[in-house]
Amino acid sequence: MSIIVQKFGGTSLGDIDKIKRACSLISRECEKGSQVVVLASAIAGETDKLIKLATQFEAKRSPEEYDVIVSTGEQVSIGLISMCLNQMGIKAKSLLGWQIPIVCDDNNSEAKIIEINKNLIFDLLKQNIVPIIAGFQGIGLKKKRIVTLGRGGSDTSAVAIAASIKADRCDIYTDVDGVYTSDPRIVKKAKKIDRISYEEMLEFSSLGAKILQTRSVEMAMRNNVKVQVLSSTSGKAGTMLVEEEKGMEKALVSGITHSKEECNITLINLQDRPGVAAKIFTSLSDSNINVDMIVQTGSENKKNINFTFTVSNADLKQSLSLMNKNKDNIGFERIITNSKLAKISIIGLGMRTHSGIAKKMFSALASKNINIHVISTSEIKISVLIDEEYAELAIKTLHSAFELD
Amino acid sequence: MSIIVQKFGGTSLGDIDKIKRACSLISRECEKGSQVVVLASAIAGETDKLIKLATQFEAKRSPEEYDVIVSTGEQVSIGLISMCLNQMGIKAKSLLGWQIPIVCDDNNSEAKIIEINKNLIFDLLKQNIVPIIAGFQGIGLKKKRIVTLGRGGSDTSAVAIAASIKADRCDIYTDVDGVYTSDPRIVKKAKKIDRISYEEMLEFSSLGAKILQTRSVEMAMRNNVKVQVLSSTSGKAGTMLVEEEKGMEKALVSGITHSKEECNITLINLQDRPGVAAKIFTSLSDSNINVDMIVQTGSENKKNINFTFTVSNADLKQSLSLMNKNKDNIGFERIITNSKLAKISIIGLGMRTHSGIAKKMFSALASKNINIHVISTSEIKISVLIDEEYAELAIKTLHSAFELD
Repeated sequence: MSIIVQKFGGTSLGDIDKIKRACSLISRECEKGSQVVVLASAIAGETDKLIKLATQFEAKRSPEEYDVIVSTGEQVSIGLISMCLNQMGIKAKSLLGWQIPIVCDDNNSEAKIIEINKNLIFDLLKQNIVPIIAGFQGIGLKKKRIVTLGRGGSDTSAVAIAASIKADRCDIYTDVDGVYTSDPRIVKKAKKIDRISYEEMLEFSSLGAKILQTRSVEMAMRNNVKVQVLSSTSGKAGTMLVEEEKGMEKALVSGITHSKEECNITLINLQDRPGVAAKIFTSLSDSNINVDMIVQTGSENKKNINFTFTVSNADLKQSLSLMNKNKDNIGFERIITNSKLAKISIIGLGMRTHSGIAKKMFSALASKNINIHVISTSEIKISVLIDEEYAELAIKTLHSAFELD
Repeated sequence: MSIIVQKFGGTSLGDIDKIKRACSLISRECEKGSQVVVLASAIAGETDKLIKLATQFEAKRSPEEYDVIVSTGEQVSIGLISMCLNQMGIKAKSLLGWQIPIVCDDNNSEAKIIEINKNLIFDLLKQNIVPIIAGFQGIGLKKKRIVTLGRGGSDTSAVAIAASIKADRCDIYTDVDGVYTSDPRIVKKAKKIDRISYEEMLEFSSLGAKILQTRSVEMAMRNNVKVQVLSSTSGKAGTMLVEEEKGMEKALVSGITHSKEECNITLINLQDRPGVAAKIFTSLSDSNINVDMIVQTGSENKKNINFTFTVSNADLKQSLSLMNKNKDNIGFERIITNSKLAKISIIGLGMRTHSGIAKKMFSALASKNINIHVISTSEIKISVLIDEEYAELAIKTLHSAFELD
């Protein structure tokens, strides 16, 4: 008998009709003879409401209490889903993080899963009861208190449960019916991708496609969990995450993502001596600020350099204050920032073996007079930072250039 | 060092300012050098919102899930109180029913407390951390699932915790500043009672004064917990529940309560034979319907009788259908109901030793031409059922007659 994990995000549980819709999808899977385990997020908007309540006080002083409050959102939704299924005649039982338990480290609001006890889940399945598990939460190993996995953590919960019980498939229901070659709201001709490799999906997730949490993709890849992203309303097959298959025809570029959440910080006229980059990035990483792209260029003065890096808009203020605090130590003249930027990325496994893709990308952008500020690459992606106002034009241009239309 | 339990009801936690106010009351008690343990209800209105969510589905089919949902209200408020205290520089930590644990039976929505583990509470007190405990909830003994104690159960949680840790006092903060001789909204001259015996308070609670849950008063009496009812806004001393003291000047009548939640059911022309009352009340009690007053009177026909009893308005419909279902078995002719009634009760320890109180009550009502439908008495109370429209007049008349003004 196959075991299927079904995960429902907040938008799939937005009101009573959507909850009923989700339950009919659970029921349909049960009727196929599968053993079903359900993971649920909080009802859409509920987590934001709880965060608003909690942030009336200094959340940083009470990280444990913050998690006690925000974790109630999932508690309500698993109760409602179970009630709805019971009413439909399907036996179901809600399970909270501490009940299973889903044991995590004690890092509130960004806990990592350490171990999942499968006994209770299998006990219920044996009794023909559908376990309805709260996503996003667990119990801290040492402190035995509620911890949460951070925003979007329910995807990670679902994949972790699927890996732990060796599920045959993990269906992630959301409000889009899969992964597209680009954002369909911008590119009308964007197409749904039927199968995508974990590696590519990882880039999609980290480069701005808000479909799956990056951590959940990493976990799926590590544990070889078959993840499907699909819509709870359309009923159509979605996008399946798969291992890269040998002999598989690798698309040069499988998709284009964009993100407007980054900004540029440039330190001007920096003395070029060993250890200067370490000085800059130590203070940032000590404050948990993620730096994405980094570029070092010569300066007006030959002995000196300019140093550009990008951080998320949310971290801009703190980054600037850290730089200014260490101005003498780092030794720069002044700072320039730019937050009206967009990062456009092309992603594809084929890049590893095909050359000329970068050239094609830059030419396409040049043909529209789009200026590139920063470039960064990995084995299977190229990202460029451009002025925000050109973002849509750039995406459409690249979508055509790489024949994704 | 004295141990004080402070319990805050929903109206004392209605918004951020009220939460801050509650926390300043906690802080003040800590500054006196007391060890403080806090119990909290859900924020005013929150439980009703959760019940509304849950009752979208058939609650009776999923009593366990119903409790999973409604117990989140208290979880949010203990988190908020702890955050607020931490921000004020007072160390505090929230505790849920399963964390302590507060072990209950497995009766969802009306669980009874079996045992409270004191270790975690004393551990925190030793570390100078104020435990902030969720009222209304516990964990089921066998099923290990969340259970709730029923409406108003937070009072019971507070008294149970106070009894378990042998607290020196249990302060119940609410939106009134104590127990009054009558409802101050009706009787302008009603006075606050400084000290009231457990027995009298038990009658006050069960006869319509919605200040303390009856179960919590019973528990306080059994365990001799010093309970004080007081307002979280006025800051004044409230009403203290005390053991009846010997030689204490016993007020003839210490207060007057009223309730409009009852209705009358009269079975007409019932054959008077042994066991007929048992037949009537067995079916009602099997359905968990509480019968309050019972009167049997002669009927038009000498061999037959009329049988009147009262149930709460909420139970009227089900009671009628039970009676009609058993009509032949019970053997009555027809049913009359009246729901436009009020029950007025006078309460006082002095009744036990003084005669003439009933006479005084009935005369006072007669002097205003108020007709009495049913009378019921206990050692320390007399209740009468009258037409609802005379309720206020009756309360004011009795308040003066017994010199409570």
